[in-house]
Amino acid sequence: MLKDTIASIGPLDDAAMAACQLRIDNLTKPLGSLHGLEHLAVRMAGITGRPRPRDLGKHIILMAADHGVADEGVSAYPREVTPQMVVNFCNGGAAINSFARHAGAKLILVDIGVGVELPPMAGLCREKIAPGTANISRGPAMTREQALQAIAAGIRVARVAASEGAEVIGLGEMGIGNTTPSTAIIACYSRKTLSELTGRGTGLTVAAVAHKADVIARALAVNRPDPADPLDVLAKVGGFEIAGLVGVIIGAAACRAAVVLDGIITSAAALLAVRLAPAARDYLVGSHFSCEPAHKEALKIVGLDAYLHLNMRLGEGTGAALGMRLIDAGLHVLNDMKTFGEAEVAVAQDGPGALRQRSDIV
Amino acid sequence: MLKDTIASIGPLDDAAMAACQLRIDNLTKPLGSLHGLEHLAVRMAGITGRPRPRDLGKHIILMAADHGVADEGVSAYPREVTPQMVVNFCNGGAAINSFARHAGAKLILVDIGVGVELPPMAGLCREKIAPGTANISRGPAMTREQALQAIAAGIRVARVAASEGAEVIGLGEMGIGNTTPSTAIIACYSRKTLSELTGRGTGLTVAAVAHKADVIARALAVNRPDPADPLDVLAKVGGFEIAGLVGVIIGAAACRAAVVLDGIITSAAALLAVRLAPAARDYLVGSHFSCEPAHKEALKIVGLDAYLHLNMRLGEGTGAALGMRLIDAGLHVLNDMKTFGEAEVAVAQDGPGALRQRSDIV
Repeated sequence: MLKDTIASIGPLDDAAMAACQLRIDNLTKPLGSLHGLEHLAVRMAGITGRPRPRDLGKHIILMAADHGVADEGVSAYPREVTPQMVVNFCNGGAAINSFARHAGAKLILVDIGVGVELPPMAGLCREKIAPGTANISRGPAMTREQALQAIAAGIRVARVAASEGAEVIGLGEMGIGNTTPSTAIIACYSRKTLSELTGRGTGLTVAAVAHKADVIARALAVNRPDPADPLDVLAKVGGFEIAGLVGVIIGAAACRAAVVLDGIITSAAALLAVRLAPAARDYLVGSHFSCEPAHKEALKIVGLDAYLHLNMRLGEGTGAALGMRLIDAGLHVLNDMKTFGEAEVAVAQDGPGALRQRSDIV
Repeated sequence: MLKDTIASIGPLDDAAMAACQLRIDNLTKPLGSLHGLEHLAVRMAGITGRPRPRDLGKHIILMAADHGVADEGVSAYPREVTPQMVVNFCNGGAAINSFARHAGAKLILVDIGVGVELPPMAGLCREKIAPGTANISRGPAMTREQALQAIAAGIRVARVAASEGAEVIGLGEMGIGNTTPSTAIIACYSRKTLSELTGRGTGLTVAAVAHKADVIARALAVNRPDPADPLDVLAKVGGFEIAGLVGVIIGAAACRAAVVLDGIITSAAALLAVRLAPAARDYLVGSHFSCEPAHKEALKIVGLDAYLHLNMRLGEGTGAALGMRLIDAGLHVLNDMKTFGEAEVAVAQDGPGALRQRSDIV
């Protein structure tokens, strides 16, 4: 199933992108002057295959799971917070509920590996692979088979979202301790040292960050993950929500939906997804730069830009939701503005004079 | 009138900010984890004097004017574009129309110095001081009296906006050639050289940027503006829309409205406004970093942060509109999220446990 899904990821639609770019170059503004927003609009044209995409359906897929490595004291929060926050998400009281609502995105909650049995709750997808991973500082997080199961679950969830009309899928996650496996994954593909890559997570002290870097070093020494084999890295030092998000990325790309990244956890998933499925990269869109040093490093390795500098370090998909609103802003430019021809405004003296005479502007 | 308005600018409301911060610190998320958005929410509490501000009225005030220095070939666009774009704004086809609509902001258009007589148009405020400034590379842009008139016009427009319910005012501008006077103003307060400060404006070539820096050097040499006298700087190397925006900032601050900056032109106005009225600074909010090197420098001098890195270089208030949406995102966090007490989620092991017991959370 994974191989077939990867094989079905198509390239961006060049014709739609060229038509979109032509219109943007003819809008009543200096050429390229809305740079980042223009790039986002053209990218959406390439992904959807439509020269003037608009009113794109939006979903945020939030995967929750627990981590055995939380026993090592790598987080400022106790493990019980993972299920408590899932309940909070279901009740609508968390940050991501507000962010998703204001981004006009449907929030999909997935228990892919929470450590305890959750009570029946409306809106919670049950895709639990196991009640939390094993402690990566002592051995592999999961089996290779479990990693594949979690990826398959992510692909399924993405396909359902796409079938419901999602053309932009934001990634979110919840899992106490999950910046630790994420940093371990990114470290496998970076030349930076663990002391350079390891961050405060949701609020560690400086001393606790040094301890966290030690735990990651032990995880890498004990497991010896093979960077040439992304599934090996994922199974040995990953997490269930990270594996699930790898699946969401691959599944979304196969359905021609854009994938908006959030922070370090989602970028670790993106790093592995593009190793498994290089064609998925063109479907990825960055959103914000978080406080985690490994987040920036992962974006750099994958080759992605991000736009918001708010020093956020929350996760849940909050940055992805803000990124979705930037995509919307790009589509508003594309669809709401007039061209020079429509508005009868003079073009630059050495500008796109020839273009505005063309009759093939969408 | 200017002196009275400046004297009437009050400090931020510390009690409202403390109450707002207390609620934010008790929301179901790690302390400080939405950093930039939290700061914006607390700032709005201080400005409005309400612990939980919400649904703030928003206006974008766009001031348009022409510049004699455009004759020196400092822009990629001809002067006629200024009135053409004002017509385009009135007809709703420009970028700022779309951006303002999607930010939920009313757009106020002001002709404060467009070079030609504009036809009667609904929604255009007529505050023309003169049909464009004189060429600053040969002498002063305007008289000191005209600078004061333009500031007074800006104060009036801001007061009208505030009386209509605006609590957040975005700044916008249109004026072919206006990055040149803006850079000249910023250069008066910076240690950087003109070759470091001068940018491409809306799309100059490298050679044209060097020419523009020469024109600015001439403007400074001919006029010898006195940095200790902000009105002198404004009159000698400024512009009518810049002076008008100085007035908008001061007027808005006096009415306890937040002022959201856009790019280099609005930041040059902010620099002068805080020299004239230091208390206005607390009412200023940055939005994006444009491509203009002097923009970043002005923000640094004023001591303001900005959040969006989109390499935009359009002006009109487009960045301010995006900034207003970030303020909204901050207020959504403040108003839509639950506290730990409300959601029954455990707090950090060494976290704000004491706080959640308090009964005085708004």
